[in-house]
Amino acid sequence: MSTRETQSRIIQTALELFNACGTSAVSTNRIAEACGISKGNLHYHFRNKQEIVQFIFRQIVDEMNSGWYQDHLQPTIRHMAEMFARQLFLIYDYRFFYREMPALLRSDPLLLRRYRENRRKRIQALEQFFFELDKQGALHLNGNRALISSLVQSTWIISDNWLNTIEFLGREANTESILEGYDLILDILRPYYAFDERRVLMESHAAIRRHVRARGIGLN
Amino acid sequence: MSTRETQSRIIQTALELFNACGTSAVSTNRIAEACGISKGNLHYHFRNKQEIVQFIFRQIVDEMNSGWYQDHLQPTIRHMAEMFARQLFLIYDYRFFYREMPALLRSDPLLLRRYRENRRKRIQALEQFFFELDKQGALHLNGNRALISSLVQSTWIISDNWLNTIEFLGREANTESILEGYDLILDILRPYYAFDERRVLMESHAAIRRHVRARGIGLN
Repeated sequence: MSTRETQSRIIQTALELFNACGTSAVSTNRIAEACGISKGNLHYHFRNKQEIVQFIFRQIVDEMNSGWYQDHLQPTIRHMAEMFARQLFLIYDYRFFYREMPALLRSDPLLLRRYRENRRKRIQALEQFFFELDKQGALHLNGNRALISSLVQSTWIISDNWLNTIEFLGREANTESILEGYDLILDILRPYYAFDERRVLMESHAAIRRHVRARGIGLN
Repeated sequence: MSTRETQSRIIQTALELFNACGTSAVSTNRIAEACGISKGNLHYHFRNKQEIVQFIFRQIVDEMNSGWYQDHLQPTIRHMAEMFARQLFLIYDYRFFYREMPALLRSDPLLLRRYRENRRKRIQALEQFFFELDKQGALHLNGNRALISSLVQSTWIISDNWLNTIEFLGREANTESILEGYDLILDILRPYYAFDERRVLMESHAAIRRHVRARGIGLN
């Protein structure tokens, strides 16, 4: 196995174990064992668990950077729904991170700094997206930047925590529960609809169903 | 020290340590040591850390049960703001629980069951509160139960996660950041205001400031 292959195998294995058991229950030794490599080999790549988590967070950011910054170029109701589904898939793939976020960020100043930086950029991009939605007439927000910023923050918190909420309620993470989470967001935006309520709901749900089908793995 | 005093001292000490360091970094031995009692004495009261967390969660529920179910008798804009401040104080006092909730609930089926039961009752009480707000004309929600239920869920998720969000952003948990979180909720409700926007904002902020002053400890 090449160095790069080993590294990527460590990360993939760590991610699976973290998602299944949580980071505190998983030692680097257990990760090495599950990879079928020596402890020494693992530590050649990552000094400790913290570095593995940092690497995984960089993957999250990379995934967001691959295309998510084009959102404002598609300021439509449909694309907004796709953005939500996309976000929930990402959270599902890296669910340990979203479950343990407060503890992880508290214990690692470097991770916290990177998280903050990424959050700042994402919030900015989302504000730009909403600003375009308003400009293109898909929502009536009257160019109210304070309101847009507030709605972006609220919907951010709901999106980030929706899969956790589903879990608390003993529900499955599937298409139906994704739609239910998105309906909370639509209800927040409903007073600003430029189109008929029924049309927004139908277009949004269709977009999310398509997105889930296209992905085809995990959530369904 | 009586049995009851010892128990309450264990809980108080555990809570302080959990809030400072997180539950996984705090062993029952460390709690016993910090209390100045023997391990045997601690284990006479609590078999393990899980039982301590369960006891602490019962305190959270007890606090909610002491008066929180009278909210619908005061269906005013002012009281709604006080409810938010009250909730944030509770979260602050038990912040380890709100930081670690997904992990704690995943690892303890009994705790999860109690959490769910409490959540169900609280959501119901909040829906009743909003229904009364509507009926008394403080918000114009047209008796729309589906909308009320959706707004309650959204504002619940935001309230439960606001102190974590503040922490991620490196901000202090103080009056200003509580007001900022509440403004997110007000922006969600703004389309349904029955009164002048400025009046709602002023009454709400005044109520929160009063509530923070009255409490006088911790957040300020």
